[in-house]
Amino acid sequence: MDDIGQKRRLGRRSTPHRGVRIQEVAKLAEVSTATVSRALASPQRVSPEKRARVLEAIAKTGYTPNLSARSLRSQKTGMILVVLPDLANTFFSRILRGIEETLFEAGYGMIISDLDGSPEKEAHFAAFTAAGRVDGAILLNGHLFGQSRDGQGRAAEIDMPIVALCESIPNADIPQIEIDNRAAARKMTQYLASRGHRRILYVSGPTGNVLERERYRGYRDGLRRAGLSFEPELVVPGDYTIESGMQAGRFIVEQRRRPSAVFCTSDEMAIGLIRVLLSAGIRVPQDISVAGFDDIEFAVVAEPALTTIRQPRQELGRAAASALIALLQKQETPRLIRLETELVIRDSVAEPRPSRDGRG
Amino acid sequence: MDDIGQKRRLGRRSTPHRGVRIQEVAKLAEVSTATVSRALASPQRVSPEKRARVLEAIAKTGYTPNLSARSLRSQKTGMILVVLPDLANTFFSRILRGIEETLFEAGYGMIISDLDGSPEKEAHFAAFTAAGRVDGAILLNGHLFGQSRDGQGRAAEIDMPIVALCESIPNADIPQIEIDNRAAARKMTQYLASRGHRRILYVSGPTGNVLERERYRGYRDGLRRAGLSFEPELVVPGDYTIESGMQAGRFIVEQRRRPSAVFCTSDEMAIGLIRVLLSAGIRVPQDISVAGFDDIEFAVVAEPALTTIRQPRQELGRAAASALIALLQKQETPRLIRLETELVIRDSVAEPRPSRDGRG
Repeated sequence: MDDIGQKRRLGRRSTPHRGVRIQEVAKLAEVSTATVSRALASPQRVSPEKRARVLEAIAKTGYTPNLSARSLRSQKTGMILVVLPDLANTFFSRILRGIEETLFEAGYGMIISDLDGSPEKEAHFAAFTAAGRVDGAILLNGHLFGQSRDGQGRAAEIDMPIVALCESIPNADIPQIEIDNRAAARKMTQYLASRGHRRILYVSGPTGNVLERERYRGYRDGLRRAGLSFEPELVVPGDYTIESGMQAGRFIVEQRRRPSAVFCTSDEMAIGLIRVLLSAGIRVPQDISVAGFDDIEFAVVAEPALTTIRQPRQELGRAAASALIALLQKQETPRLIRLETELVIRDSVAEPRPSRDGRG
Repeated sequence: MDDIGQKRRLGRRSTPHRGVRIQEVAKLAEVSTATVSRALASPQRVSPEKRARVLEAIAKTGYTPNLSARSLRSQKTGMILVVLPDLANTFFSRILRGIEETLFEAGYGMIISDLDGSPEKEAHFAAFTAAGRVDGAILLNGHLFGQSRDGQGRAAEIDMPIVALCESIPNADIPQIEIDNRAAARKMTQYLASRGHRRILYVSGPTGNVLERERYRGYRDGLRRAGLSFEPELVVPGDYTIESGMQAGRFIVEQRRRPSAVFCTSDEMAIGLIRVLLSAGIRVPQDISVAGFDDIEFAVVAEPALTTIRQPRQELGRAAASALIALLQKQETPRLIRLETELVIRDSVAEPRPSRDGRG
């Protein structure tokens, strides 16, 4: 075990700590080398006290734990890059938890990059990835390095396992993990219609975003199934942020003929929008119903608590990490994995006031 | 310029793309090599259209942009690791924005690691750092790799620039960037007392956390200055999360003699706590006033809008990144930088009801 670990380690790119051997870690931690290996491979088989000593010794010596001993033949750096479109969106926190849990069980660490819509930043991360500083990548940004969102342009030739999560990438031959955004948006629209709403305003995501495209289709599907006509003036642009929800709220406040329900395609927008309505003396849900999408942590503590679509965020993260690990182990991996969403009914949607519009 | 760039690049550790030269990037982008250099070093001097072509070509070829051309002699990987204690806390989003902006202007990319309280994960990142896969690190977790929070244990010998942000690290000889947590908590406690509150409940952060220690001292200072006696039963444990705020809220609901004001040491706890009070029919601020700490994005859209302490989050991030860049450039850097906080008065704090307690 130790010899194998040592050989593997020497096969890596040289580092300032190339001399550090498992024996040194064992000595510093005052345990056997077998215990060091076990503490990394099967932590539950080592006492917490010994385990802490081993990990402390690893940190002090700079030894790179060879977790690849667990048959991960292709592992080189032990790190996976996760590319996010916007870290500030709290939607991602549980997804990252799910990714990290699963990667960690397989002996990988996760590092995160936040693109923030910047092509310059993307060039940085593409170079970082291409330089082999990670073993694989999970993309949540809807396109491959070097491509645009609609799949135009030649993708960067990066020879490592990559999977796409949440925002699917058109025509990319990689595993893609997502929810059925169209079906989820249809479900919410039909629910609002079933409560009696006839004028359902839609607050969109960013233009060109694949999630937005699918949710918008679902909204149209839902209207059609409920026998409601589509009215273009009931579509208001947003970008999933609190601020854009507040803007949509101000737009509604200024309307003479207001909708009886608003479907925000993110919870952050719904929370911002509700704030603006309440400040203008419009009660939610008594005067206007508001629904969200995602079920972030703040949805349940919002006032009123948000009716929304729950995405299985942690499970999405776990599924993406599992698919990536399968690729790293050269196993067969399905190209498309779709997880189920759930309509979560709380307090922000009610029946429309019959007095205000006549038709709801 | 190009020759220097080329030499530097060859001096790096070998990568799958070691053959990629700036000339290839220039050819693919249909610009001169000087334009490639300029697009990276002084982007504003290159047209957006050309710049996009260059960045696309960089991504496609896997060329590692040698941004160190801007006199950053010690730059090797172009990447800085940011270590967070809990990524799920939305408090960090703007801090990360500030770090990234400043790093990016200096030609560095940011990658993020989330420790989530796990020593195993920490060993991973310590090894990653020690292996030279980044050029420096910004620690927001309150201790050096290999040490405990109280500075016990020998720190890992990692030979690269490191700065501490928000959670200061005792006795560490590195630049530390923070707010004056004690003064800020004292300010909030005195404000609550100035509104007439006599029984101010304190919801703490995690035990052993330096932020918690300082804020608790500030709470005690504030009580003393306001001439209020400290009552141990008015301290309720929390850990900065929404869930722990909800727990504190349930505790208050069950009390016969309730406080007239609650000082939550994070906005997330305040939002969770308010939710529980409202659900139990306790009005905020009419029955109980609630204050937060941090001024996260959700504070202003909360219902009622949160009275809180604003941390200059983006500026904190920028200051830490600037200090790190100074270290990377071997410049003198102050050991302690403290930024100002601000008491933000919104709607969640009012005078106590005279009828309920007699003393407020």
